[in-house]
Amino acid sequence: MPSRSIRTPGIKDVAALAGVSASTASKALNDTGQLRAATRERVRQAAEQLGFTPDSRGRALASGRSFTVGLITTDSSGRFSIPIMLGAEDALSAGEMALVLCDTRDDPLREQHYLKSLVSRRVDGIIVTGRRTEAREPIDVPIPVVYAFSPSTDPDDTSVIVDDHGGAASAARHLLSLGREQIAHVTGPESHLSAQIRAAATMGAAREAFVGQPLYGEWSERWGRHAVDVLLRAQPTVDAITCGSDQIARGVCDRLRELGRSVPDDIAVTGYDNWSVMALASRPPLTTVDMELEELGRRTANLLLDVIAGSPRRGQLILPTRLITRESTLGT
Amino acid sequence: MPSRSIRTPGIKDVAALAGVSASTASKALNDTGQLRAATRERVRQAAEQLGFTPDSRGRALASGRSFTVGLITTDSSGRFSIPIMLGAEDALSAGEMALVLCDTRDDPLREQHYLKSLVSRRVDGIIVTGRRTEAREPIDVPIPVVYAFSPSTDPDDTSVIVDDHGGAASAARHLLSLGREQIAHVTGPESHLSAQIRAAATMGAAREAFVGQPLYGEWSERWGRHAVDVLLRAQPTVDAITCGSDQIARGVCDRLRELGRSVPDDIAVTGYDNWSVMALASRPPLTTVDMELEELGRRTANLLLDVIAGSPRRGQLILPTRLITRESTLGT
Repeated sequence: MPSRSIRTPGIKDVAALAGVSASTASKALNDTGQLRAATRERVRQAAEQLGFTPDSRGRALASGRSFTVGLITTDSSGRFSIPIMLGAEDALSAGEMALVLCDTRDDPLREQHYLKSLVSRRVDGIIVTGRRTEAREPIDVPIPVVYAFSPSTDPDDTSVIVDDHGGAASAARHLLSLGREQIAHVTGPESHLSAQIRAAATMGAAREAFVGQPLYGEWSERWGRHAVDVLLRAQPTVDAITCGSDQIARGVCDRLRELGRSVPDDIAVTGYDNWSVMALASRPPLTTVDMELEELGRRTANLLLDVIAGSPRRGQLILPTRLITRESTLGT
Repeated sequence: MPSRSIRTPGIKDVAALAGVSASTASKALNDTGQLRAATRERVRQAAEQLGFTPDSRGRALASGRSFTVGLITTDSSGRFSIPIMLGAEDALSAGEMALVLCDTRDDPLREQHYLKSLVSRRVDGIIVTGRRTEAREPIDVPIPVVYAFSPSTDPDDTSVIVDDHGGAASAARHLLSLGREQIAHVTGPESHLSAQIRAAATMGAAREAFVGQPLYGEWSERWGRHAVDVLLRAQPTVDAITCGSDQIARGVCDRLRELGRSVPDDIAVTGYDNWSVMALASRPPLTTVDMELEELGRRTANLLLDVIAGSPRRGQLILPTRLITRESTLGT
């Protein structure tokens, strides 16, 4: 462990080692002033020898910027916000910006506390993300903000969201292209916007091949297993089931296997999320829709950098999903 | 979106609204100087009306501290480091410290880049975490560092780790207390320290009830299913299987059910991790060992604050695990 007595070498240490004044050392390292090349070089070598790192806080204060971005998340379990955060961090670190994490745990008081703290730290911008696709109230800060995954209710704000409609439609079209003629849909709670949109998109894309009504339930394997029993009573000749999540799809596959129905020979199944511990561990592995959340995080961060640079793009940016095909529709 | 023209109100705006000089306004807000109570109150009201937030960077520069901590993680999938990060963030934010996220993606060059950037930002300390329990080389920075989950190879560094030995032993003792007499162990790769320690601890705690040798394989459901076939050929009368992860245990339960063996009536099963999507979705839900990683993150952050305050605790702090009992050992 570094002892408290080992302090970060400062410009004075560099100057002393190089045998120059602190102001000369500073000029040498900043490539300013009129110095002989040999002096500049001697200072540079001294800085390298001491492991001197310039204090970026001075630059930050002088520029009026902190080179820091705050990320507000309401999603402490993090299944959606963690990849968004990692993508944003990746894009920001490439531009020497740091990402400060603020996990509000869905508590409005904590959110207010964090906003005050971020404003007080003079962060250059804020990314706001959540775990639902429903729009959320905008935050009120005098700093650039971009919303990711959960858009702002204000259409003039900048929000980056997933094309859930296109994602669900791509799964249905894939099944049609494989010759499936009776497509059902099993999804999460009807109160969730993402469940509604995915159901509507599936019906729209499957058209006359869609059978029955969307089966709304919960985002769980248990519901997927139960829904198979409900569905097969009502639609015994169904040959494809699109699901609103990989968890549901995994439960659907498990129950079909227990009933002796082959996936995909008898019934093809698709998931949604491309959550690897579900999609790959499923028997068979799932054809599913990847929301590309890490890329969404990168795009969000780059849009925020544009706003910070004074070139805001207003409104919603809707990013495409990607269909990943595996054995649950293609077979082995 | 906040327009670029809406700038953060400054001390001069507060002073103008209150009808005092900027230096008087500053004294009023900092509770310094000799001012009349009425003046102080008028400045405070002006600050509140404008939503003025003091610039904490000034305090940071004056104190020589940045009130910021960096978190270096090598684990971008994040199953272990995310809860540690959230726990650390929780503990730090309570003390008005910000957590800066640095995801190295297991790339030593990225790690070096981040370390330079954190030193340049004058962070007050660094938390280093990873996804393996093997010790790692210490990082070389003139700043306080605490290691979480993956300890430093230097025994003088401060590291906070999980009591894997105690965790695995608690599962075996639980099975003994339920009267199980033939306990087997199925786990991940023998090259992983965590697999070795959990296997040794299980054998030590089960003593004469342990049957055969630990079955090493991979951290997957597929291996759990396969291991059941291997195990039942060699030890047909086994009445308990302890597993090195929840994924393995879930595969074990699935395969036992397919073979018509009841869990726990015929064979009790335990997992490790208390990873809810595995432990709760398993049929039946898993008795498992919770490593309490969020608490580990909190303890790490608090230890780092102690080091920053000049009271370092050197060496390894080993935190206890918690056994969570569910239907896979207790039945319904």
